[in-house]
Amino acid sequence: MNTTPVIEILAVGNELLNAGVQDTNTFWLCRLFTRLGGRVRRAVLLPDDEEAIAAEVKASVLRAADAVVVTGGLGPTADDVTVSGVARATGAPLRLNEEALRMVRERYDALAAKGVVSAGGINPAREKMAWLPAGAVPLANPAGTAPGVLMKAGRTSLVCLPGVPQEMQAIVETSLHDFLAEVFTGGRFIERRLIVDCNDESLLDPLFRRVAADYPGVAVKARAGLFAETPRLEVFLSVTAGGGEGEGDAEEALEKAAADLQRLLAEAGFGA
Amino acid sequence: MNTTPVIEILAVGNELLNAGVQDTNTFWLCRLFTRLGGRVRRAVLLPDDEEAIAAEVKASVLRAADAVVVTGGLGPTADDVTVSGVARATGAPLRLNEEALRMVRERYDALAAKGVVSAGGINPAREKMAWLPAGAVPLANPAGTAPGVLMKAGRTSLVCLPGVPQEMQAIVETSLHDFLAEVFTGGRFIERRLIVDCNDESLLDPLFRRVAADYPGVAVKARAGLFAETPRLEVFLSVTAGGGEGEGDAEEALEKAAADLQRLLAEAGFGA
Repeated sequence: MNTTPVIEILAVGNELLNAGVQDTNTFWLCRLFTRLGGRVRRAVLLPDDEEAIAAEVKASVLRAADAVVVTGGLGPTADDVTVSGVARATGAPLRLNEEALRMVRERYDALAAKGVVSAGGINPAREKMAWLPAGAVPLANPAGTAPGVLMKAGRTSLVCLPGVPQEMQAIVETSLHDFLAEVFTGGRFIERRLIVDCNDESLLDPLFRRVAADYPGVAVKARAGLFAETPRLEVFLSVTAGGGEGEGDAEEALEKAAADLQRLLAEAGFGA
Repeated sequence: MNTTPVIEILAVGNELLNAGVQDTNTFWLCRLFTRLGGRVRRAVLLPDDEEAIAAEVKASVLRAADAVVVTGGLGPTADDVTVSGVARATGAPLRLNEEALRMVRERYDALAAKGVVSAGGINPAREKMAWLPAGAVPLANPAGTAPGVLMKAGRTSLVCLPGVPQEMQAIVETSLHDFLAEVFTGGRFIERRLIVDCNDESLLDPLFRRVAADYPGVAVKARAGLFAETPRLEVFLSVTAGGGEGEGDAEEALEKAAADLQRLLAEAGFGA
């Protein structure tokens, strides 16, 4: 059993690449999946280009990611092409999804009742948001009009979420809850940070290498700052522990590796 | 002549994907290249994994990007594998580059003279930063110790920069200046923003489609906010104009498209 789900993230929008907007969804999702015990293997920013989206999703499915999470490009306008890109990648034809249509209609009716939009009901642009790949399930969007999309392609779960951060987060925290509970079965990302009284990575590298060789499951990573700005350096040791028998072992290896590194640093004359 | 350079960005570091650090280099570079008249086609975050870096760089070269800019993974420690990933992607063997070695030595000697590091000179970890792919040119780093790297692979220029933002920016603004002047020959990204007194994209979509169809070179993109939070919506029309004869035409098309959209919006009863 694969206890560490492997995730790939795809953020779509011309504005992310022409610096009209700084993508923050990727970071938010990386933090979420890491905390849940998953491993984000890659994250990609792409323009509003159906072909590029289709190629990227197809590659993720071929790499057998456990989940591919796409943000952006779900709206009613012609430049929103994420769902058609996913349909193209998976070969699942777009169909009018009755449940999604109901969700969209209800949202616009409610917005019209509050006077936020001039009229409720459906028009062609609104209906577009209910055309989903065959077999997909819509995810209710409590903060906007475009439903999210959940579907399977091979062993990979594909999740499409809106690009507006509040809508993306609202779907994750409500409609996507059951899916996340199913995929992330209690694993954890555990990290220990050592602050070393030395800012010269070139002197510390032999020690890092030794610990990394002794504990293959433990990632050892120094984070460099700017020389002279700080006389210290941070070293992170981390493991991703699956939610099962192996978890205690992984945590034990992490603690031993941290203790070993601390001892090696002390022997070399560096406080940590 | 291709007057709009196509750029791909690659940001490397486990900490970017496990949310230890939020990547800001990509946004900074997207803004720079867009302002210079380039088009950033995609941006990828990858872990410190030589094979993944090599595969991504190879794919960028096969897509014939004009430039691939990689940030992160240039340091002295074992987890810094960007340069070996690039070597693997291009087939250029790693060689000790004498100019890079001189740069690294000079930086450590200067840091030692200021008391920032305990000793100057070269050790194996420091020397590692001077092993570059054959044919590569080192880029002096005024803010750190790892030189940047510039090389060609087919028609693609590969640029490797450190992940520490101040070092990355310092190299771009000094050592990379001539390269940028050569690649970006005066093109411009021009954008017009219309603020529409309507927050319902589904009503505006037919107008956007009409303008987009009339002006194929002009990108029309609505940026949705949260319903009810604002009664307005932003629409961006943009062109990337090459630095040559076509520039005036592109700008003229943009102005005409913006005027047309404003007229269509007014006819439909929306202020803009």
